[in-house]
Amino acid sequence: MAERPPLRIGLIGTGFMGRAHVFGFAAAAKAFALPYRIELHTVADVSEAAARAAAAQLGFRHATTDWRAMVSDPEIDLVDITAPNALHREMALAAIAAGKHVYCEKPLAPLAAEAREMAEAAAARGVVTQVGFNYLCNPLVNLARQMIADGELGTITTYRGVHAEDYMADPAGPFTFRHDPAGGGAFADIGSHALATAEALLGPITRLMGDCVTVIGTRKDASGAERPVKVDDVGRAFLRFASGASGSIEANWIATGRKMQHDFEVYGTRGALCFSQERFNELHFYSTADAAGRRGFRRIEAGPEHAPYGAFCPAPGHQLGFNELKAIEVAGYLDAIAGKCAEPFGFAAGHRVQTLVECVHASARDGAWVDVPGH
Amino acid sequence: MAERPPLRIGLIGTGFMGRAHVFGFAAAAKAFALPYRIELHTVADVSEAAARAAAAQLGFRHATTDWRAMVSDPEIDLVDITAPNALHREMALAAIAAGKHVYCEKPLAPLAAEAREMAEAAAARGVVTQVGFNYLCNPLVNLARQMIADGELGTITTYRGVHAEDYMADPAGPFTFRHDPAGGGAFADIGSHALATAEALLGPITRLMGDCVTVIGTRKDASGAERPVKVDDVGRAFLRFASGASGSIEANWIATGRKMQHDFEVYGTRGALCFSQERFNELHFYSTADAAGRRGFRRIEAGPEHAPYGAFCPAPGHQLGFNELKAIEVAGYLDAIAGKCAEPFGFAAGHRVQTLVECVHASARDGAWVDVPGH
Amino acid sequence: MAERPPLRIGLIGTGFMGRAHVFGFAAAAKAFALPYRIELHTVADVSEAAARAAAAQLGFRHATTDWRAMVSDPEIDLVDITAPNALHREMALAAIAAGKHVYCEKPLAPLAAEAREMAEAAAARGVVTQVGFNYLCNPLVNLARQMIADGELGTITTYRGVHAEDYMADPAGPFTFRHDPAGGGAFADIGSHALATAEALLGPITRLMGDCVTVIGTRKDASGAERPVKVDDVGRAFLRFASGASGSIEANWIATGRKMQHDFEVYGTRGALCFSQERFNELHFYSTADAAGRRGFRRIEAGPEHAPYGAFCPAPGHQLGFNELKAIEVAGYLDAIAGKCAEPFGFAAGHRVQTLVECVHASARDGAWVDVPGH
Amino acid sequence: MAERPPLRIGLIGTGFMGRAHVFGFAAAAKAFALPYRIELHTVADVSEAAARAAAAQLGFRHATTDWRAMVSDPEIDLVDITAPNALHREMALAAIAAGKHVYCEKPLAPLAAEAREMAEAAAARGVVTQVGFNYLCNPLVNLARQMIADGELGTITTYRGVHAEDYMADPAGPFTFRHDPAGGGAFADIGSHALATAEALLGPITRLMGDCVTVIGTRKDASGAERPVKVDDVGRAFLRFASGASGSIEANWIATGRKMQHDFEVYGTRGALCFSQERFNELHFYSTADAAGRRGFRRIEAGPEHAPYGAFCPAPGHQLGFNELKAIEVAGYLDAIAGKCAEPFGFAAGHRVQTLVECVHASARDGAWVDVPGH
Repeated sequence: MAERPPLRIGLIGTGFMGRAHVFGFAAAAKAFALPYRIELHTVADVSEAAARAAAAQLGFRHATTDWRAMVSDPEIDLVDITAPNALHREMALAAIAAGKHVYCEKPLAPLAAEAREMAEAAAARGVVTQVGFNYLCNPLVNLARQMIADGELGTITTYRGVHAEDYMADPAGPFTFRHDPAGGGAFADIGSHALATAEALLGPITRLMGDCVTVIGTRKDASGAERPVKVDDVGRAFLRFASGASGSIEANWIATGRKMQHDFEVYGTRGALCFSQERFNELHFYSTADAAGRRGFRRIEAGPEHAPYGAFCPAPGHQLGFNELKAIEVAGYLDAIAGKCAEPFGFAAGHRVQTLVECVHASARDGAWVDVPGH
Repeated sequence: MAERPPLRIGLIGTGFMGRAHVFGFAAAAKAFALPYRIELHTVADVSEAAARAAAAQLGFRHATTDWRAMVSDPEIDLVDITAPNALHREMALAAIAAGKHVYCEKPLAPLAAEAREMAEAAAARGVVTQVGFNYLCNPLVNLARQMIADGELGTITTYRGVHAEDYMADPAGPFTFRHDPAGGGAFADIGSHALATAEALLGPITRLMGDCVTVIGTRKDASGAERPVKVDDVGRAFLRFASGASGSIEANWIATGRKMQHDFEVYGTRGALCFSQERFNELHFYSTADAAGRRGFRRIEAGPEHAPYGAFCPAPGHQLGFNELKAIEVAGYLDAIAGKCAEPFGFAAGHRVQTLVECVHASARDGAWVDVPGH
Repeated sequence: MAERPPLRIGLIGTGFMGRAHVFGFAAAAKAFALPYRIELHTVADVSEAAARAAAAQLGFRHATTDWRAMVSDPEIDLVDITAPNALHREMALAAIAAGKHVYCEKPLAPLAAEAREMAEAAAARGVVTQVGFNYLCNPLVNLARQMIADGELGTITTYRGVHAEDYMADPAGPFTFRHDPAGGGAFADIGSHALATAEALLGPITRLMGDCVTVIGTRKDASGAERPVKVDDVGRAFLRFASGASGSIEANWIATGRKMQHDFEVYGTRGALCFSQERFNELHFYSTADAAGRRGFRRIEAGPEHAPYGAFCPAPGHQLGFNELKAIEVAGYLDAIAGKCAEPFGFAAGHRVQTLVECVHASARDGAWVDVPGH
Repeated sequence: MAERPPLRIGLIGTGFMGRAHVFGFAAAAKAFALPYRIELHTVADVSEAAARAAAAQLGFRHATTDWRAMVSDPEIDLVDITAPNALHREMALAAIAAGKHVYCEKPLAPLAAEAREMAEAAAARGVVTQVGFNYLCNPLVNLARQMIADGELGTITTYRGVHAEDYMADPAGPFTFRHDPAGGGAFADIGSHALATAEALLGPITRLMGDCVTVIGTRKDASGAERPVKVDDVGRAFLRFASGASGSIEANWIATGRKMQHDFEVYGTRGALCFSQERFNELHFYSTADAAGRRGFRRIEAGPEHAPYGAFCPAPGHQLGFNELKAIEVAGYLDAIAGKCAEPFGFAAGHRVQTLVECVHASARDGAWVDVPGH
C-alpha cells in the first residue's frame, strides 16, 4: 500500500455522537483501505475540561474551546460537527468558508432553508460533505436497496416505516433544546431517519400528508420553571413515491420500551422485506418464487456476501455493532473526498430530508396533503 | 347442570366462515357451560349439493336452498349469516322481522346507513345480535384491554395498528365481489378489524384522516373481461381517540407474505403492549415498574390466568386455534341471548365500525380530517 | 355422503385429557369426512358427580362410576382411557378382552413389559388401538417428516430434541402419582414425547446413553408427610439412529418458565429444520439451495398446503390450536379402524416408546450405552 | 488523564483473528480509560507480503516474518498469538521466556498437558496472560453471571448449552489442520466455548459424560488426496457441576444454517435465562416473582446499565458488534497487566478448558463418565 496522504480531523463536540464518530474513524482506519491516513488533530468543546479529557481519551493531539480558530486552522482538513443542532449552520458555514470538508451530524439544521444555504455553500466552495444518517450504512439496508432496485420483490406497492424510541417518554423528564421548535421535535429528530430510509429504498417522495401531536404539553427546565412544549412527540405521514408506491411512516420518541425501533416493511408484487434496527444484523425476505408450501419470511443473517460486512469479519453471523455503521459511513465519505465516488449522503441530501420534515410539519399544521418540492 | 333449553341454529352459507361458525358452535358446546343446548337445525346455500354436503359433514338436520323459508321457520331460534356481504342486509332484516336472533359475519353491510337500519330493526324487534369480530375474542386481547383499563400502562399516548394479508397480492387474481365498491375494498374488509380492535382497546375514535389507494387497477372477471377496480387495496388512517391518545392504522390486502398480520402496539406513560395475530397466543408487555437493567418486553404466553383460555385447556402454553376464537365469540353471544350480559359485539357495534370505515373513505376522498359521528 | 355407521365412545376420565379428547372428537366430526358417526355414549369417572357433570357438559348420553361395566357394554365400540397412568393396563386389557377398540393416553403403561402385553393382547384380539402422542399430529411435524424423507435436507447428520415444561418446578409442589416410580418421572412423562418425535422424524434409535437426575429430593404428600422422590426431574440421552445420524434429547419438568418447549432441530447436508411447540404453527427451514446472500431460516406458517390444516381452515396463517391436534389424532385413528390406513400410533408404537424410556433409565442407572432392542 | 505508559504489541498472525484483535485494540483504546497507551509495534506472518500489507492496513510500525526475533525484541511488551493452533505452545513459551505478556487465541494448545506447561511457565515467569474466549466478554453474559451469582434465579437446577456453526457442513469442503487430531475437532474448536461459558455461569464441572461423532469420514486435502478425518464433527456432554446442578452441552460444526449458535438456557427454582449469540445484544429473563398472569420471558436489550456497554454507547438498544467483544477482552486484560484485577481468562483458565475437552474426548472414547481433575 502506497503512502497515503493524511486527513486531519477537527471534531466539535465530545458527547454521544462525538465519541461515536471517533469510534467510526478508528474502526474504519483498520477495516478499510481508506484513501487517507486519518489523523485525529483537534477536538473542540465549550468546556475546556471536556475537550482535554476527550483529547486524552480519544486520541486527539490538541484540545480547544475555540471552534472558530479550529475550523480555520490550516492544519485541519475536515471539520466534524457533533455540537447541538442549533449550532450546525454557523459552524458548517465557517468551515466551508475556510475550505474544509464538513461532516455534520443530522439534522443538518433546524430549517430547510438553512440546510439549503449550507448545501449551496458547500457546492459553491467545492468541499465534500456528509450528514450522519448511519442507519443507511448497514450492509443489510444496502442489500434491501439492491434487491428492490434489481426487482427481486417485483413492483413495490406499499411501505411501512417507523422510528420509535422512548428517550422522551417520561413526562417528568426535563425540557431540553430538543423541545424547542428550533430543535424540531420527534419528527425532525428521528422521523428524519425514517424519511431518509424510505427514500433510500423506494426513491423520491412526491406528496405527503402529515400528523404531528404534542403529548406532554409542559416540561420543567433546569431552573424548575414549567415550559410549554410546542414540538411533536409523535408524528406520522402518509407517503406517495415517484415510483407509484404509497406508504406511511411514524416517528415517536415517547414509545415506552422501544430503544431503537427503526423498522421498515416493503411489499412488492413478488416479495417482501422486513427489517428492524432492534436486530439490525438480520433482514427478513419473502419470495413468491419459493416453492408452494415452503414459502416464508427467511431470516438472512449479515455476512461477507453483504458488503462491506466482510471488511470487519470474514465469517457470517458474528454481527456488526452500531459504531461499525459509523465506520462504514466514514469510509464512504473518505472515498467521496478522494473523488472515488459521489457523496454518499452529503449536505444536499441533508437538505432534502429537512425539506421533507418541513413538509410533514406544514401538512400536519394545515391538515392537507402537500406536494414535496424539488424531487 | 339443569336441562337447558335448545337454541336451534339456521346457518346461511357453507364456505370458510360458515364452517368456522360451526366449529365455533361445536367447541363452545363442549368448552363452556352454555345457557342453551345448541342444535344445528338447518343449513342453507344457493347450491343444493353444497347445502346437503354441508348438512352431512357439519351435522345439520336439514338442508335447504331457500333461506327465506328458513329464516321464518318457527323451529329456528337463531339465524347465522355467512353469505356474501351484499346479502347480509336483506337476510338479517328478514330474520329480525321473524323475531330471530341474528349472528352475522362482518361486515354487517356495505353501507353504514344499511348497518344502522339493521341495528335499529334488531333493537326495535328486541332480538339479540352479534357480528363476527373474532379477533376481539382472544383471551390475550381481552387481557390487553383490561391492562389498559386498569392503568397498568399508565396513560395511553399512542397506538399503531395494522391488518395486512396477501390474498389480493397477485395482480393476476380474478375480479371478485370484494373488488366491487359494494364489497368495500381492503379497509372495509380487514381495516374494519383494525378499527374494531383499536376502539376495543382505547375507546372511541373521535376524528380521523384517511388515505386509500387502489394499486391493481384492473382485474379479469370470470368471463375474462378486464374490469376496473375502484376499491382500495391499501388504506391508512390517522386516529384521535376520545381519551386523548392518537394513533394510526393500516389495512392492506396486497401485503405479499403476510397471512394474518393483525397487529397492534400500544404505548403508555408506564408501559407498552405489542401483539401480533401471527402469534396470537402471546402478548408482549413492557413495564417501567421492572427494575433498572431488567426491563424488557416480556412474552406472556396464554394460559388459564387469561379467561376464557381455561375453558379449553387447564395448562398454559398449549395454545388456542383460530376456530376456538369463534367458540368464545359464540359463548359470549349465547350469554347475551340468555340475558346474562350485554351483546359483546352486536349490530350497533357493527354499525359503528361501518361508520368508521365510511369516515376513512370520505376523509381519503376529500383529503381532509373528519369528525366521527355518534361516538 | 352415505349414511355412516356409528362409533360409540366410552370415555374413562374427565380431567385435562378427557376433555381434550372430547374436544378432539367434536372438532374431528366437523372437520373431517370421518368413516364413522361419533356418538359420545358413556363417560366414566371414580366420582359420580364428576361423571355426571362431564356427561352434561361434554355431551355424553350416560355417566357411570363403573368403568368395568362400561368397557364390556355391547353398546360401546371404542374405549377411550384418560385415567391415571397406573390404571391404563388393567382398563385396556379389559376393553380389549371385550373386543373394543382402545384409545389410550400416553404413556401406555409404566413398564415396557406391560405395554408389550397390551400391544400383544390388542393384536391377538384384532382391535385397533391408538396412543395419544398428539404432537406428532401437527401438520408441520408431518411436513418436517416428509421433507426429511424426501431428502430436502440431504443426508441427516444430527438431531437435537427437547421437551421442557415447568409444572414440577416449584419445590413446594406436592408429591403426586407422577413422583412415584410407577408414574415414571420426567423422561417417562414428557421425554416419551421427545423420543416419539425423534423416531417419527429420523427413524429407529438403535443405541443410546441416558442421564437421569432427581433434583427435588423430597416432596410433601397430601397428609403433609415428607416423601422421597426417586424419579428423574430431568433426563437426557445421546442417540444413535439406524440411519447413521446421531443426536440428543432432554426431558425436563422443572424448566422454570417453559410451558411447552417441545422443540427439535434437524441438520442435514443440504438443509435444516427448527421447530418449537411454543409456536407450533411455524416451521423454520434452511436450504443450501437458496441463492448465496439470500439464505436464512425461513418461517413457514401452517396453511392449507400442509395437510390436514385445510380441513380446519382454507386460509393460511390462521393457526390451529392444541385441541385440533387431538382432532387430527382422532381422525387418523378412525381411518385406521375403518381399515383405510395403518394405525397411526397404536399400542405397538406405545410399547416402543416405553422400551426406549426404559433403555434411558437403564443406561442412566448403569452409566453405559445400551442397545435398543427390537428396532 | 496522566501520561500513560506505552504497551507495545507484537502480533503473530494476520488472519480473521489477527484482524479481530487489532479491531479490539483500536476500539478499546477509544472506549476505555486503559492503563496503557497501546502501540501496534510489529506484526509477524509467515508471508512477508501478508505481514507488510497487514502492517500498512492495520497500523503496525513494523512487519516481520521472524516471530522468534519479534518475541525477544526488547521493544515488545505483549505478544499476541493468532497463528494456527499447533504453533501456540512454541510461540507462547518463547514469549514467556522473554518475559513478555502473552495474549493467545484459543485453544491454548491441542493437549491439556501442553496448556498446563504454558500456564505454569507463565506463572513461574510472572507474566500476565489471556486466552481469547471473547463470548464471555459480552455485557449480557456478564449480567447473566451476576444474576445467577446473586440468586435472582433461585437455586440453579439445569443447564443447556450449545455451540453450533456450519463452517464444516459441506462434505466437499477440504481437509484442513482442524481435521487433524492435533487440531482437535468440533469439541476442541467450539465446544471449548460452550464449556467456558458453562463454567463461567455455573462454576466448576466435576463430572461429565461425552459423546463424539465423526460424520464426514474423509475429506480431500490440497493435493486432492482423500484423507481420513478422525476428529469429531459433533460432540456432546452431560455435565455435573460442583454446585449440584446438571446440564448438557453440544458442539457441532456441521449444523447447516447455523452461523453463531452459541446459546444457553439456565433454569433455577425462581427464574430462568435464555441467550443466543445469534442475537447477543439480548438476554431473556423469566422470573417467578412477576405477578400471576403477567409472567413471561422478557427480552432485556443491552444498555448502559450493563457494564461495560456504556463505554461504547450511552444509549440502550444500539448494539455492540463482535469486534467490540474483543475490545472488552483487551480492556480486561490490560487492567490485569496493570495489576488492577486478576487475569480475566488467563492461561490457567485456558488449561482448564483443555482439560475439560480432553475429559469429553476420553469419556466419549470409553463410553463412561469421568471425574474432571483439578476443579
